[in-house]
Amino acid sequence: MAVDYTPLHVAAEGSARLGRISTPHGSIATPAFAPVGTQATVKALDPRDLAELGAELVLANTYHLYLRPGADVVAEMGGLHGFMGWAGPILTDSGGFQVYSLADRRQVSDDGVLFRSHIDGSQHHFTPEKVVGIQEQLGADIIMCLDECAVPDDRAYVELALARTHVWAERCRAAQTRSDQALFGIIQGGVFADLRLRSADFLVGLDFPGYAIGGLSVGESKALMYEMLDITVPVLPADKPRYLMGVGAPEDLLEGVARGIDLFDCVLPTRLARNASLFTRHGRLNVRNAAWARAPGAIDEDCACYTCRNFSRAYLRHLFKAGELLAYRLATIHNLHFLLQLMRDIRQAIGADTFAAFKQEFLAHYPIVPDEVRAQNRDKRMTRRRQ
Amino acid sequence: MAVDYTPLHVAAEGSARLGRISTPHGSIATPAFAPVGTQATVKALDPRDLAELGAELVLANTYHLYLRPGADVVAEMGGLHGFMGWAGPILTDSGGFQVYSLADRRQVSDDGVLFRSHIDGSQHHFTPEKVVGIQEQLGADIIMCLDECAVPDDRAYVELALARTHVWAERCRAAQTRSDQALFGIIQGGVFADLRLRSADFLVGLDFPGYAIGGLSVGESKALMYEMLDITVPVLPADKPRYLMGVGAPEDLLEGVARGIDLFDCVLPTRLARNASLFTRHGRLNVRNAAWARAPGAIDEDCACYTCRNFSRAYLRHLFKAGELLAYRLATIHNLHFLLQLMRDIRQAIGADTFAAFKQEFLAHYPIVPDEVRAQNRDKRMTRRRQ
Repeated sequence: MAVDYTPLHVAAEGSARLGRISTPHGSIATPAFAPVGTQATVKALDPRDLAELGAELVLANTYHLYLRPGADVVAEMGGLHGFMGWAGPILTDSGGFQVYSLADRRQVSDDGVLFRSHIDGSQHHFTPEKVVGIQEQLGADIIMCLDECAVPDDRAYVELALARTHVWAERCRAAQTRSDQALFGIIQGGVFADLRLRSADFLVGLDFPGYAIGGLSVGESKALMYEMLDITVPVLPADKPRYLMGVGAPEDLLEGVARGIDLFDCVLPTRLARNASLFTRHGRLNVRNAAWARAPGAIDEDCACYTCRNFSRAYLRHLFKAGELLAYRLATIHNLHFLLQLMRDIRQAIGADTFAAFKQEFLAHYPIVPDEVRAQNRDKRMTRRRQ
Repeated sequence: MAVDYTPLHVAAEGSARLGRISTPHGSIATPAFAPVGTQATVKALDPRDLAELGAELVLANTYHLYLRPGADVVAEMGGLHGFMGWAGPILTDSGGFQVYSLADRRQVSDDGVLFRSHIDGSQHHFTPEKVVGIQEQLGADIIMCLDECAVPDDRAYVELALARTHVWAERCRAAQTRSDQALFGIIQGGVFADLRLRSADFLVGLDFPGYAIGGLSVGESKALMYEMLDITVPVLPADKPRYLMGVGAPEDLLEGVARGIDLFDCVLPTRLARNASLFTRHGRLNVRNAAWARAPGAIDEDCACYTCRNFSRAYLRHLFKAGELLAYRLATIHNLHFLLQLMRDIRQAIGADTFAAFKQEFLAHYPIVPDEVRAQNRDKRMTRRRQ
């Protein structure tokens, strides 16, 4: 068995649960957050940093690595573990989400996705079989089915995409040749309760070793996202891990855990860090602000990360203003530490049957970015980039 | 005494020597190479990296730190040591060289240098007194006199600049108020033997705790640079450290050490690293080259640095091609390790009275970049930048 999930403890109230995922490259204490290493590197960090931060799972992107340096190159270098020098568990996505966000550069058909590379415009075709083959070359411990991520509130499109996602899930299962990798199914269905249920039922019927919930946190409100989790998670088997894709805001980790989610990944902490936006228990702080020019204190005096133990806000501000590479590194260390520490605290609280109180206490101090502001930020980002 | 130099061993043949410089922040085994942290950070590295690399002295730039974040800010944050989180010895230059390279943005008079900031065009005035005051705020262990670095082969200009440099050296000495910092004099004189001797004589007469040799490696041939060292070093007192400014090519470190130099600094290893140009015992290797796309081996299989112990050429090439921040970090670690290891090997060889043979053996395998190519690269760089 490539991946084995052991439930360890379910919270006295609610659905939060402790567990352990075993993989050929080590085990993952869940609930867990996976930092994202899109191009086989968590931006600005090295694998030693990740180990020191206590990361137990790293995500890499099939779409990016397929285009550059090529899955064959990664395979020749010993797979992702050897290539990027990370000996712990790795998860690769299927490339579906990246291709979906290429917008005008891709064409989806029942057979797969035709798309143009954001690097050189070259044309490529992803099919379920091809995507499994690429992920077998990359060699992650957990791999994902090809799915189609539709506009979440366009019912006709979501239904069409769901039908494809289900056929593709079957084709992915059939295409798998390696037994040391766990292939997860991805539940879609937009913001429609009946479609989410239909998708969960269908995929559970295929008996995957784990289930991802995709197509959320793509523009819908937080309330709707939580509602979809409320509907979906209860129909998933208790002895399989549940992975909420692309979600990483602190409040969403808490709400996801409360609903029984075991795994999360998101570029949020690392992307925010490179924009000088740093997590604290009282919300995000932009360290470029002039207010910190002479601030001798750490980002968070109680934080145990390398950055907070050694550097002032004034120094971090200076590094950002001066465009120094160290800025990105120190900020990334802090933001990842914040989320990974949050997950450790969450696990501790679940074990002590105090999770509900822990969640309430955390959210009482943490101001949540409103849906409208998140939507604006998303629009700006999508306009700027192609991947 | 802020800084105390102890000669430990002079090579059986030649002038190479082992020594130790004690400072309030620890001691430096010499001959030593100092990585450059222009803006209070060695680009892409953190202080822990520097300690792991075995760096014992870091250089920071007065010109840059005066402009941003300001010497007063650094002073408030506990001086450079506190600000940048580096507990070991630090050296600051006087800003003279940076101002000199501003070309059309500066005006030198007997009183000092009027210049415009490369950041915002604001006007500033450096005098010997001001530059010492700034360096006292920055709080390095070794600080430098303000000097004027002339075009090395323009005799009339060199003579004029030399006269100023000498008066400024006296004014710097008189301006010093801190007793825990060692103020070094800077010998100038272009490529003229008699002027170099005149400068050395004059400054030795002022009895500085250390002597720097400036205005070399600024466009003259390597042969001329070595000739100037041959002339200058013998008239310097044996019980004071000798610092060759801005020199860091492996062959120049060996030739400098052979002539009795104790300290070196240069942006070369860190700048080359960010351009994917990596030191090996057989010359520089550009890791962006297509030849390394599937190369499983390290940059140097015998190298003990973190980068070579963990990553293939193929991975480094991928990081550079993908524009990943980790590329700069891993390449910088390797290049600094190469030079710092070279200095360790040099010290070991001097101690064993085998330095001459070590130097010959190293240079037999290390192809030197010809003077013409160096001149072209320099011209390109000077055209591109303003600092």
